[in-house]
Amino acid sequence: MSHALEVRIDQLESRFQFRDLVSDYCHGFDKRDLDRFMAIWWPDAVWEIGPPFGDFHGATEIARAVTDILWPAWLQSTHYTTNLRVTFDGADLATGMCDVDCIGTTSDQQAQTVAATYDDRFERRDGVWKIARRKVTMHHFSPLVGITLSAPK
Amino acid sequence: MSHALEVRIDQLESRFQFRDLVSDYCHGFDKRDLDRFMAIWWPDAVWEIGPPFGDFHGATEIARAVTDILWPAWLQSTHYTTNLRVTFDGADLATGMCDVDCIGTTSDQQAQTVAATYDDRFERRDGVWKIARRKVTMHHFSPLVGITLSAPK
Amino acid sequence: MSHALEVRIDQLESRFQFRDLVSDYCHGFDKRDLDRFMAIWWPDAVWEIGPPFGDFHGATEIARAVTDILWPAWLQSTHYTTNLRVTFDGADLATGMCDVDCIGTTSDQQAQTVAATYDDRFERRDGVWKIARRKVTMHHFSPLVGITLSAPK
Repeated sequence: MSHALEVRIDQLESRFQFRDLVSDYCHGFDKRDLDRFMAIWWPDAVWEIGPPFGDFHGATEIARAVTDILWPAWLQSTHYTTNLRVTFDGADLATGMCDVDCIGTTSDQQAQTVAATYDDRFERRDGVWKIARRKVTMHHFSPLVGITLSAPK
Repeated sequence: MSHALEVRIDQLESRFQFRDLVSDYCHGFDKRDLDRFMAIWWPDAVWEIGPPFGDFHGATEIARAVTDILWPAWLQSTHYTTNLRVTFDGADLATGMCDVDCIGTTSDQQAQTVAATYDDRFERRDGVWKIARRKVTMHHFSPLVGITLSAPK
Repeated sequence: MSHALEVRIDQLESRFQFRDLVSDYCHGFDKRDLDRFMAIWWPDAVWEIGPPFGDFHGATEIARAVTDILWPAWLQSTHYTTNLRVTFDGADLATGMCDVDCIGTTSDQQAQTVAATYDDRFERRDGVWKIARRKVTMHHFSPLVGITLSAPK
């Protein structure tokens, strides 16, 4: 295979891998699958949520943020990631931007709607793409007043 | 073309075909395009919605569920599928997981919000990928109290 | 590279480029990045929003619609595009259909939910894919009565 062809196919495959990473963030978080959630981050990754939750540095802090802060804060959540827009900054480095719509119920039994943008840095190390940094910019995080979310019996 | 290259390109093309299948479920259902909706299923497919609608076995039952149960239950609906995560289990078999956000109005004029996860088995037969099984797990199906959905005039 | 292989890889790359175009519509509009928003349209593009905003012909009218009509109408918006379904109509022509979920606040301080479908014509000119025509079909555009959207402090 020519080098040019290899690069083109590699970029196509990488694009699906970025898509998998941003999807696994949602699946891992919402379905409380810590292994899936943690597999998207490099050990030295930074997760900058900002208010109201804060910033977290490294996989140990990120895992603790999820298990000790975020999962307790949400009784149930569903994150929907769309509009993923990736640019390659090199063979093993890429910048992503995507939007998330989240609906769920916080621990005070209040239904919430959240809209945010994720700015990501994807890095490939030893042939594997993971997230090195995710910065969250929240557009709203607001109570769905008068609405109760529940599953059918 | 080498076998290895053929496999890589085939998997990339297949990934877009899975994306098309889960999209056509939404387009077919919401736009009441029965041909598009039914084209995603194998004749022996199983659609396990569970409560409140039940499970449906085979294309005939699936078509009847849509035309006789689900379309009458919804005056209007829009399903948004995201977070599609696929793993290949063989050349002609793959497992998918994706999330759906749905907003619409049921036949009692009540606006609703639904969040669910779809677990899919994709099978390729005679070169064509379709859904052999879709299992729905609902996270919430709840009235948007006080909200009326309508199109601009 | 064989012609057949070139066509297959070109279609895969094009599919990601369509995805980028529909994503940049959302990122450009919501983040008020006019350069990003305008880069998706051909100079002779047609944007048929219909009620309540109207139709716009050519890049100059489209830019003015955004800056003079739509951005003033929204204090904040987030558009989520999913279910992108593309068919190729030739080497340089493709038809797309995707759905959008939008939540935001109009200039009267009222939170809104919008659901619509975008029917797109993608054209490739001098090797670049852009949108030649986007027709919007709105399913609902309705106030989220009693709900106030705001970002965490």
